[in-house]
Amino acid sequence: MLLNYSDLETTEQSVRTSLINALSGYKSLQLVGTSNALGQMNLAPFSNVVHIGSDPVLMGFIHRPTTVERHTYENILETKVFTFNAVTKENYMLAHQCSARYTRNENEFEAVGIVPKFMDGFKAPFVNDSPIQIGLHLEEIHSISNGTHLIVGSVQLLQISDELIDSDGNMDLSRMEIMGVSGLDTYYTTTFHNRLSYAKPNVPLSTK
Amino acid sequence: MLLNYSDLETTEQSVRTSLINALSGYKSLQLVGTSNALGQMNLAPFSNVVHIGSDPVLMGFIHRPTTVERHTYENILETKVFTFNAVTKENYMLAHQCSARYTRNENEFEAVGIVPKFMDGFKAPFVNDSPIQIGLHLEEIHSISNGTHLIVGSVQLLQISDELIDSDGNMDLSRMEIMGVSGLDTYYTTTFHNRLSYAKPNVPLSTK
Repeated sequence: MLLNYSDLETTEQSVRTSLINALSGYKSLQLVGTSNALGQMNLAPFSNVVHIGSDPVLMGFIHRPTTVERHTYENILETKVFTFNAVTKENYMLAHQCSARYTRNENEFEAVGIVPKFMDGFKAPFVNDSPIQIGLHLEEIHSISNGTHLIVGSVQLLQISDELIDSDGNMDLSRMEIMGVSGLDTYYTTTFHNRLSYAKPNVPLSTK
Repeated sequence: MLLNYSDLETTEQSVRTSLINALSGYKSLQLVGTSNALGQMNLAPFSNVVHIGSDPVLMGFIHRPTTVERHTYENILETKVFTFNAVTKENYMLAHQCSARYTRNENEFEAVGIVPKFMDGFKAPFVNDSPIQIGLHLEEIHSISNGTHLIVGSVQLLQISDELIDSDGNMDLSRMEIMGVSGLDTYYTTTFHNRLSYAKPNVPLSTK
């Protein structure tokens, strides 16, 4: 199927939304945990999460336009901290349910039945059963023309399941059944295939 | 394993780089195709690709610091266009090989054996065998404090394998064996698990 700009403009809106959301491929769903200044917790799934740098350790995610009430965004502005929590086969349906429009007074942890966890005096809640729990401090917000934001944080705290990490620091995410997602609602299980060597011109790749 | 900020600072650099790159989870490797003003082609793999919006159709990717020669970045500034091309089990090793440091006069298409394709007068090359070929026009560059850039483009042209698209616009990426990747070098095959309904408070989820 070949679509140009004007075809896309005239594609029925829900079809276009599904199609365009799927174009960027696999993601990991991350549950983003926040609190407001009074300690009211919020938990919301985001899938557009990126690695930005290793020194300093920076990660980011794309947040939708904040023209309607967006608890995650407001909480991050208020407390400057947030958490990423990887989602497994065991809890991905609870994670998906967190995308429902709960009111500010509702707490997704309670509403869907996810156990929160607090570590090291960090002001945002983690997901207790997640194999990768990351605590971040807000560093930068970049506002994009369509009203979305790239929220960049520095990693302050990491709790990772020992089973996941290899001696060289790499992780095989399939070991803990971390789910892949594409588009708005499509979930995948994964199978480790291989690791490839660092690529150099005119040197054949090998598997690690 | 629990690591705080100072543990991370003292972790051996290669271990930290592997670990931190893996934190953000699964990605799709995208081959980014560009040309300079003279038509010299370049092809490079990027894995931090995000969906930014469906109306207008915006996608972005994180580009490493441009302190050393970065052909993709320079070509995008020169011609304002680039392509994303999804990577399958059949060609992911060729895609990985494109990350080698070829010189400006070398052309990764030729060097690794990937067939380029031109469509509709678009000035950047596509990957002929890719099931998802996306042509984008540069819209915005957001520079992040560590020297990386978020490059945002609007989708101008789409060529998608018919086998991939459902009637509602969604894609099951496992059908064409599109590979998942995490960290710097870890590849996964995927299996479609299910699609979940739109979440609403107090309504049980169903599968589509």
